[in-house]
Amino acid sequence: MENFIYDTPTRVYFGIDQEKKIGEILKEYGAKKVLIHYGGGSAVRSGLIGLVEEKLKEQGIAYVLLGGVQANPEIKMVRRGIALCQQEGVDFVLAVGGGSVLDSAKDIANGVANPEIDVWDFSMGKAQPKKTLPKGCILTLAAAGSEMSNSCVITDEETGSKRGYGSPMNRMNFAIENPELTYTVDAYQTACGAVDIAMHTMERYFCPGEDTYLTDALAESVIKSVMKAGTDCLKNPKDYAARANMMWASSLAHNGLTQCGRQFQLVVHQFEHEVSGMYPKVAHGAGLAALWCSWARYVFQANVPRFLQWSKNVWNLDIDFEHPEKTVQKAIDLQEDYYRSIGMPTSLSELGVKEEDLETLAYRCSREKTRTLIGYKPLAYEDILEIYHMAL
Amino acid sequence: MENFIYDTPTRVYFGIDQEKKIGEILKEYGAKKVLIHYGGGSAVRSGLIGLVEEKLKEQGIAYVLLGGVQANPEIKMVRRGIALCQQEGVDFVLAVGGGSVLDSAKDIANGVANPEIDVWDFSMGKAQPKKTLPKGCILTLAAAGSEMSNSCVITDEETGSKRGYGSPMNRMNFAIENPELTYTVDAYQTACGAVDIAMHTMERYFCPGEDTYLTDALAESVIKSVMKAGTDCLKNPKDYAARANMMWASSLAHNGLTQCGRQFQLVVHQFEHEVSGMYPKVAHGAGLAALWCSWARYVFQANVPRFLQWSKNVWNLDIDFEHPEKTVQKAIDLQEDYYRSIGMPTSLSELGVKEEDLETLAYRCSREKTRTLIGYKPLAYEDILEIYHMAL
Repeated sequence: MENFIYDTPTRVYFGIDQEKKIGEILKEYGAKKVLIHYGGGSAVRSGLIGLVEEKLKEQGIAYVLLGGVQANPEIKMVRRGIALCQQEGVDFVLAVGGGSVLDSAKDIANGVANPEIDVWDFSMGKAQPKKTLPKGCILTLAAAGSEMSNSCVITDEETGSKRGYGSPMNRMNFAIENPELTYTVDAYQTACGAVDIAMHTMERYFCPGEDTYLTDALAESVIKSVMKAGTDCLKNPKDYAARANMMWASSLAHNGLTQCGRQFQLVVHQFEHEVSGMYPKVAHGAGLAALWCSWARYVFQANVPRFLQWSKNVWNLDIDFEHPEKTVQKAIDLQEDYYRSIGMPTSLSELGVKEEDLETLAYRCSREKTRTLIGYKPLAYEDILEIYHMAL
Repeated sequence: MENFIYDTPTRVYFGIDQEKKIGEILKEYGAKKVLIHYGGGSAVRSGLIGLVEEKLKEQGIAYVLLGGVQANPEIKMVRRGIALCQQEGVDFVLAVGGGSVLDSAKDIANGVANPEIDVWDFSMGKAQPKKTLPKGCILTLAAAGSEMSNSCVITDEETGSKRGYGSPMNRMNFAIENPELTYTVDAYQTACGAVDIAMHTMERYFCPGEDTYLTDALAESVIKSVMKAGTDCLKNPKDYAARANMMWASSLAHNGLTQCGRQFQLVVHQFEHEVSGMYPKVAHGAGLAALWCSWARYVFQANVPRFLQWSKNVWNLDIDFEHPEKTVQKAIDLQEDYYRSIGMPTSLSELGVKEEDLETLAYRCSREKTRTLIGYKPLAYEDILEIYHMAL
């Protein structure tokens, strides 16, 4: 087991009507002027933004509004948010939305608190935020896990570069999670969320590490639970239990719990970020579903025992000890079947990715052939390209 | 699923050599004068207290020492600690030890920060601490889970009353967990720890609640992992993987993770606190092992499906659908066999409890016949007495 630091300071208010506490909660955190940051019109149309405004007014807390965050949140919007906060003297950033809104809010909070640094440098790994503004969120989508994670993923819309960075400054002070707020998420986005959550756990599960049987069992629990929840949400979008288990899985999948004692990389995420960076209409979860099985088929021979453990504990397969690779292949097939069962793609071509773009994707994913992705099997440019081809 | 607040602010530094960071960590928290609180001589003899002193000196941090905390920590020691902190102007409390030392340190921190309240009033539920001193710990025993919990259990040595209270003020700011520091814990205390950890999870698991399949799976993971770790630690006390999984299970079992969305009571803990309150030489874990199966046999008919889920998922039993109670009884027998396999008692008489004391225990546990313990089956004085008799 590797040494680790476990640090999940985000206080979660989970359940029905929790968003109605937003005024009192912000008061408790001493907020004087809040940036209310959100995405498209749905948060306005649903009345959620209106509710937040009302609750802040009740507590005498001033605020400014900034909507319009898109999927794959853009650095342009982050810069607008920073300027607005500086101009208005904002001291607290409140994100109302899904992972894109939360990530945009995190980057704004970091940008405001570190005015001497260009905010894109955080994404490019050229600088680390040393301070941040306090921030919280009202979550409306169970997917990215940004509500408890130390992660922030931003896209430079001009170059198509999509870059994530981790930092303790990226932790929300609080997260309000009411599963009912996700009842209106459509089937496709719900399925994308289930994939994203499962993948946050599976990517950690398939990192190098040993003797972490507690962490492994927790990870297997999250994977199985979110797959069940995803299926149930699609059957009945107002199934509270399904929405609730999925939302809580979203937070636990990405807050660090499922990586304790293991090395940490999100390899398939690296593949996917290039795809949705180049094809901005590709939903992150769909991209992951299209890629994961090809990655697994390419690398599993490098650690058959680990994939066997997953085959047994997640897919309840009996291990074929004479031909263990057949058991693993069957489990990967079952994973693929699951993705199809919830309407997710299992190939890049379904997402409109063109064969002639694969070399560019591999070139970018390998950071112009300078980066080898590590894991059970090191993946340099040629490997990355091969996996993109397999996934096509 | 019930609404819940999840709030685990304790930063955990986990792994080999982490205790060597204590000076830097205390510096980061701004400590100027530290109370180093510890138990018997073993922390001194092992050189751990000397190491802490050296690291604090390196950082120019002043400190005072207060050792001598016993198992079932006493309010008398808490009062001594409070007086010492006030006299010396202590601004940070560092506990070096197991759950008893940590609980004593928590109560001292609360007492110092709330001088207008008698500290025993916190234990008696007559007052709640509103403030606290910052505090951290170096853990030397995997058992009580106090390192991440909001719980504090103190005994009034004059009356034999042992009382726990929960408060956000009881959360440690940080916990240093090096599994190697538990290599010298003897077999009996190691087994007591395994029981205590498993029980923190099982008590939550057997609380009322529904639709919490993610939380349930996480709880089952903790229960199975700690039982395996306990067995492995006894086979080889220097098995790092076993000590590490057990230590991490200790923290997760009691930090709130395994209760999310369920009601929360620790019913068998209430039974046990009276036993070790009256018989101070009884180790808490041993008392729990002696009581749990009798409690389970008394109540399981009130929620057979829940006990069946446990029988299947923790004990891998095939359910006998014609006679489901037989499956549950078999699982309880297996739990009892497990306790015996690690050298734990499965009856109160093994702990020296006398039959003539059972009425007093039941009287105290029912708070002079005014309290009914809730759960699948309400337990008033007569029920409590019957369970004590079954456990004798």
